[in-house]
Amino acid sequence: MAHDPPRSPLAPAAFPAIPAVAGARLAAADTGLAGGGRRDLTLIELTPGTAVAGVFTSSRMPSAEVDWCRAALAATGGAARAILANAGNANAFTGAAGAAAARASAEAVAERLGCSPDEVLLASTGVIGQRLPTEPITRGVDRLRGELAGDAWEPAADAIRTTDTFPKGAWATAEIDGVPVTVAGIAKGSGMIAPDMGTMLGFLVTDAALPAGVLDRLLRAANADTFNCVSVDGDTSTSDTVLLAATQQADHAAVTDPGDPRLAAFRDALHCVMADLAAQLARDGEGASRLITIRVDGAEDDGAARRIGLAIANSPLVKTAVAGGDPNWGRIVMAVGKAGERADRDRLAIWIGGHLVAREGEGVPELDEGPLAAHMAGREIELAVDVGVGTGAARVWTCDLTDRYVAINADYRS
Amino acid sequence: MAHDPPRSPLAPAAFPAIPAVAGARLAAADTGLAGGGRRDLTLIELTPGTAVAGVFTSSRMPSAEVDWCRAALAATGGAARAILANAGNANAFTGAAGAAAARASAEAVAERLGCSPDEVLLASTGVIGQRLPTEPITRGVDRLRGELAGDAWEPAADAIRTTDTFPKGAWATAEIDGVPVTVAGIAKGSGMIAPDMGTMLGFLVTDAALPAGVLDRLLRAANADTFNCVSVDGDTSTSDTVLLAATQQADHAAVTDPGDPRLAAFRDALHCVMADLAAQLARDGEGASRLITIRVDGAEDDGAARRIGLAIANSPLVKTAVAGGDPNWGRIVMAVGKAGERADRDRLAIWIGGHLVAREGEGVPELDEGPLAAHMAGREIELAVDVGVGTGAARVWTCDLTDRYVAINADYRS
Repeated sequence: MAHDPPRSPLAPAAFPAIPAVAGARLAAADTGLAGGGRRDLTLIELTPGTAVAGVFTSSRMPSAEVDWCRAALAATGGAARAILANAGNANAFTGAAGAAAARASAEAVAERLGCSPDEVLLASTGVIGQRLPTEPITRGVDRLRGELAGDAWEPAADAIRTTDTFPKGAWATAEIDGVPVTVAGIAKGSGMIAPDMGTMLGFLVTDAALPAGVLDRLLRAANADTFNCVSVDGDTSTSDTVLLAATQQADHAAVTDPGDPRLAAFRDALHCVMADLAAQLARDGEGASRLITIRVDGAEDDGAARRIGLAIANSPLVKTAVAGGDPNWGRIVMAVGKAGERADRDRLAIWIGGHLVAREGEGVPELDEGPLAAHMAGREIELAVDVGVGTGAARVWTCDLTDRYVAINADYRS
Repeated sequence: MAHDPPRSPLAPAAFPAIPAVAGARLAAADTGLAGGGRRDLTLIELTPGTAVAGVFTSSRMPSAEVDWCRAALAATGGAARAILANAGNANAFTGAAGAAAARASAEAVAERLGCSPDEVLLASTGVIGQRLPTEPITRGVDRLRGELAGDAWEPAADAIRTTDTFPKGAWATAEIDGVPVTVAGIAKGSGMIAPDMGTMLGFLVTDAALPAGVLDRLLRAANADTFNCVSVDGDTSTSDTVLLAATQQADHAAVTDPGDPRLAAFRDALHCVMADLAAQLARDGEGASRLITIRVDGAEDDGAARRIGLAIANSPLVKTAVAGGDPNWGRIVMAVGKAGERADRDRLAIWIGGHLVAREGEGVPELDEGPLAAHMAGREIELAVDVGVGTGAARVWTCDLTDRYVAINADYRS
């Protein structure tokens, strides 16, 4: 597509070869909603009996689709036959018309698949405050029905992009009670679409035979350490949505307790897929030239560690220092200090690229800046802090803040 | 000074003609601490009997000077004979050596003025993590003693700058019980000094005869609505310090209750001076091309309104939209949504430059973008939201986010 932005320098070499997951089929089409010339509508068909769980934006201004999904999950108790996602229009802050458009989209899919509208989950990303036309969606669904395929992960990932520069996918396998299962997922990250903000979307499908209540617990736990640990600019979309669907096709014994030890490998696989997608979101942050991975240890608890990590990740001063290749640990001290969590100034230690740069309330004397400069010149920056008060730990991903970010977000209409 | 950055396009035409305040004298000198070729040390001498109150950074990583001021105010119960401030070295994250350097600075002033070191308040701004040499400060204090003058506000304001592009001062008069009093202040804002973050410093002096407890209450109240309502990039310095000194020289009757109605005009004057300085900080935000004033109404309470205002002010997406002259109200919806405070999506209203752009959960239909575009093309942008849940209100100042901000903070060493 000629109008695509250049691929992020941090993009993986290729989209992974994600296999089909029994019970799920995908397709994507160009409906014109995102301006034409690109795929913009994704349908994931799920076999009858599929269980689903979701986590959604904490925004007080949720989109009509987020409202729809919350109500549908409550109504069905976590059953789903399809996920429909469009790019180009977020259907957010669109009032009663937006709610009607969401319902019409779900009804269009339900009619064609022979299910209840509540079993159709929706996600939209793109322009805020503009009414979503339903006709292109209905027409698109008609077309997608005939094109569903089990391995169409890459077109599906492509169609949910806004200005993401590459499609994002990941997968893993695990065994439950000796039976192999697959977890596959696609996501989109922070991209802009005139005139509005990006949205984080993630859709995960597994063939595991797990009920909605178990999926919900596993999804929330993995989400806290993965998608909730990514930040590009600290802004929160009206539309963030992560769905995990389990098609029940795997032939393992029933597992109804999310804490069951037989789920350990599945939990790890889910975590790996979501962590992989989360890091891909940071790799495609707007204007990113460097991936920043932040490890926090010694916090009061894991939540405090995550908030300290996000304070570092969201600091424009830290992010611009990284953009400039500057191992400026003073700005990390500042960010830890402002996080609002317990931290012991006189025990704080900081590492950049594995090199200790500060400890016990002071910089390391006569620090050799050579290895630091070499690390900062690379594409993947590792920051670590120990805040010296407890055992809480977290890992957070972000990217640097470059003039490209400003250009992308300021000059859109110019 | 040849190496000064160009003056902010939002700077006032000239430094105000601040009169002398009885009981206070000021001087500033070049000690070389900030690299030479500019003033970098400010001394404010206060007459015996002066009462003082202070508010300090909420950072968990406070500088040695912030530690010093907190302890000194506790020890004296709010008595001060001097304020000494240096630019060029923040004396933050410098361990025991930093604490010793702060003590040595206070002792140097105390010896020369014949007071206790606890009566000397300190502030430092500049490089973090580097030891503060005391010899240039001691030598500077010797020189400053001979140059103290009642009206030297502009050199004092100049000497506390880091990369602020203009010195910031303001003053007002009021009557207490029929007796005229003056409130004068200087401040510095978000500037960078290699290799570290800026600091917000504000020093206010009045000749009013008010005890430290009253000053403390008045300062905290005014600070909440002024300096605490400014944000350039959401980062919080290790060194933020605001001091209010009252020299007791005005001949009015004693006022010991901060709620006394005779203080109404003084409270207003203090608020005006601090609000003026606060707006000047936003006018000099790094790379700023536009001043943004955000009015929030209809929040649960004033604190919630302030947090919503700061969520808008700290949103990189809102700030880059303003930089691009784009009346992008969708990003304001997003920022209100992420603030974490109660807000009613379906009653939210938004104005840009006084023009209603969204209300009742939807954009205004067929909006005439002409007047909006004209407003956005100006230097002073007015955003207003009513979040529809209560009577809380706040006003917040910030500036736009331009590629100059990134260049200033990323390219410092390049």
